[in-house]
Amino acid sequence: MKIVVDAMGGDHAPQAVIAGVVDALKEFDVTIVLVGRTPDVEAELKKYQYPRDKVELIHADEVVGMDEPATNVIRKKRNSSITVGVNLLKDPQYHAFISAGNTGAVVAASTINLGMIPGVERPAIGLTIPTLKGFSFLIDVGANTDPKPQHLLQNAQMAAVYAREVLGLENPSVGLLNIGEESTKGTDFVKEIHKLLSEKVKNFTGNTEANEVYAGKSDCIICDGFVGNIVLKVSEGLMESVGALMKREIKKSPIAIFGAFLVKSKLADAKKKIDYSEYGGAPLLGVNGIVMISHGRSNPKAIKNAIRATMREVEHDIIKAMQKEISSAV
Amino acid sequence: MKIVVDAMGGDHAPQAVIAGVVDALKEFDVTIVLVGRTPDVEAELKKYQYPRDKVELIHADEVVGMDEPATNVIRKKRNSSITVGVNLLKDPQYHAFISAGNTGAVVAASTINLGMIPGVERPAIGLTIPTLKGFSFLIDVGANTDPKPQHLLQNAQMAAVYAREVLGLENPSVGLLNIGEESTKGTDFVKEIHKLLSEKVKNFTGNTEANEVYAGKSDCIICDGFVGNIVLKVSEGLMESVGALMKREIKKSPIAIFGAFLVKSKLADAKKKIDYSEYGGAPLLGVNGIVMISHGRSNPKAIKNAIRATMREVEHDIIKAMQKEISSAV
Repeated sequence: MKIVVDAMGGDHAPQAVIAGVVDALKEFDVTIVLVGRTPDVEAELKKYQYPRDKVELIHADEVVGMDEPATNVIRKKRNSSITVGVNLLKDPQYHAFISAGNTGAVVAASTINLGMIPGVERPAIGLTIPTLKGFSFLIDVGANTDPKPQHLLQNAQMAAVYAREVLGLENPSVGLLNIGEESTKGTDFVKEIHKLLSEKVKNFTGNTEANEVYAGKSDCIICDGFVGNIVLKVSEGLMESVGALMKREIKKSPIAIFGAFLVKSKLADAKKKIDYSEYGGAPLLGVNGIVMISHGRSNPKAIKNAIRATMREVEHDIIKAMQKEISSAV
Repeated sequence: MKIVVDAMGGDHAPQAVIAGVVDALKEFDVTIVLVGRTPDVEAELKKYQYPRDKVELIHADEVVGMDEPATNVIRKKRNSSITVGVNLLKDPQYHAFISAGNTGAVVAASTINLGMIPGVERPAIGLTIPTLKGFSFLIDVGANTDPKPQHLLQNAQMAAVYAREVLGLENPSVGLLNIGEESTKGTDFVKEIHKLLSEKVKNFTGNTEANEVYAGKSDCIICDGFVGNIVLKVSEGLMESVGALMKREIKKSPIAIFGAFLVKSKLADAKKKIDYSEYGGAPLLGVNGIVMISHGRSNPKAIKNAIRATMREVEHDIIKAMQKEISSAV
C-alpha cells in the first residue's frame, strides 16, 4: 500500500510530519510517498533510521501557507505539495493522500482534481470523536458551511458506510444534531433535513442534542459544516481552558500538587481517550479518492495515527463501498 | 425590591425552588413573591425558618410541563405560574421574574405579555460564561433560532449594556462567533452580520473562533440561537463526559484514588468556577421587563444565585439602560 503524505503541511512541517512518518514505518506495513521540497525533506529524513525502500520522494516546489485563501492553491500554486500530492491519486498505484496543511486548500484541490463520487454533490469533512460508549462520527466539521438539505443526506449515507467499514460499528445509528429531541425543534432548515433523513436513511434515530454527543447517543452525527466546526472548536477550547484552570487551582496547594502527581498517570489515560492526536485525521468524504486532513497542530503521533486511520480506509476500499451505498440509495 | 419567582418551574420544583428562595432570603435584602399552587408552596415553606414578611404567595392553578409545546402556555394555560408571574411585572411594584420552568413557555409568555423594548424586534437569551480571564456573555443561546441580521445587531447592543452594567466590564468588546478569524469566513448570513456589526457596534473586535470562547477573547459573543444553544449544550455534555471518564480511569488504581482525594478540594474550586449553578440564570433580553431563565435542572444554589443576578439587573435598571442604548444607536 502506498500512501502519499504532504511533507510541507501543518504548523510543524516538515519536522513533525517526517517524524510521524518514520514512526509509522516502524509500526505499519506501508510505503510512504513524501511530497514537498525535496532538499528540506531529505534534510529531515537524515535525522532518522528508517527502511529506505519504504519511502519515495516526489518534489513539489511550492508550499501553501496555513492562512492563505484556499483558491490560491488552484489559481496560483499549481506546484504546491497539496496539488501535486492530490493529483498522484489519479494513478491507481497511489492509494491515499494525507495533509496537515491548509484545510480549505486540501478540500479545493481534492474536489477539483479528483472530482466527486457519483451521486455526491459536495465534499464533507468527518471526524471520529471519542465518547463514553466508544466512538462517534461527526460530519461535517467544516467543508460545506452553506449546504443544501440533500448534501446532508449524502453525508449521512457516507457517514454510515465510514462508521461501519472503518470504525467497525455494526448497523450504525444516524442522528441529526439539533437543539431538542422532538422533530418540531430547530431551524426550518434542520426540520427539512429531519424529514429527509426520516424518509431516506435506514437507521435514522432522530435528533441528537448537543449535550448527548459525547455520551455517544448516536454513532453518526449529522450537521452542517458551520455548526460542526463550532462543535469541534468549542470542545477543543473548553478542554484547554478547563485544563489550564485546573492547573492554576492545583498549584495553590502543595497537597493538591502531590495528589495530582499520584493521579497523573490515570488522568493521562483519560486524556489519551479524548486526545485528537490519538485518532489522527479527519477524512474528507465525497471526493473520488481517499483524502485525510490532519489537524494543523499535528504532532508526530497525530501524523502516525492519521496514517493508520487512512490505511484502514484503503483496506476497506471505502470509496467503492460509498459508491455502492449511494448508487443503491438513489 | 420584589422579585417574582415561579415556584413550579424546573425539574425539581417546588422543592429546589423553595430551598433556594429560603437561602436567598438569608443572604440578600429582597422580598420574594412565590407564584404557584399555594398548597404545594405552603407545604414546602413549612419545612424552613425564614422571614415571613419577606415572602408573598400568589396562587396560580396550572403548571406548564417541561416538555410541553410553548404555545400551550399562551393558548391553554392562562393560569399557569409562568403567565401569572410574567403578568405581575406590568405592576411596577414587582421588579423581575425568575423561572426554571419550560424555557419556550417563558419566552413566549414574556414576549406576548410584556412586549418588546422599542427598537428590539425579537427576544434573546444571554448566558454569562466563565472564561480564563473572568466572564464573557454569550447571546443568543436559544430564543431565536432563525434570526435576521438586524436581530443579532440588536442583541449585540443589548449584550454590551448587560456586560457593562451587570458584569461590570468597562467598554466591553463584542465578537462574532465564527469559524475563522478573517471577515471572509463563515456562511453568507454570518458575513452579512459581520458587516453590520462592523458598521454599527462601537467596540466590535471581529470574529471570535469557537476555540477562543472559553479563553475569554471577547466580552460579548454574538451568535444565532441555534448555534448558541449548541455551544451551551456541547459544553455541558463534554464536561459531564470528561468527568465520568476521569472517574472511570481513576477508579482503576488505588494510588490514583488517594491522589484524587488529595486534589479534590482544589478541583472543587476549579469546578465551582465553571459551574452554571454558581452564576444562576440566563437573562431573557429584549422583552420589556426583567426576566431570568434558570436551568431546568437548577438546584437550590442555582436558584439563589439566579436571584442575586436578577437583583443586580434591577439595581442597574437594565431595561432603561438598554432602551437608552438602542434609541441612541438608531
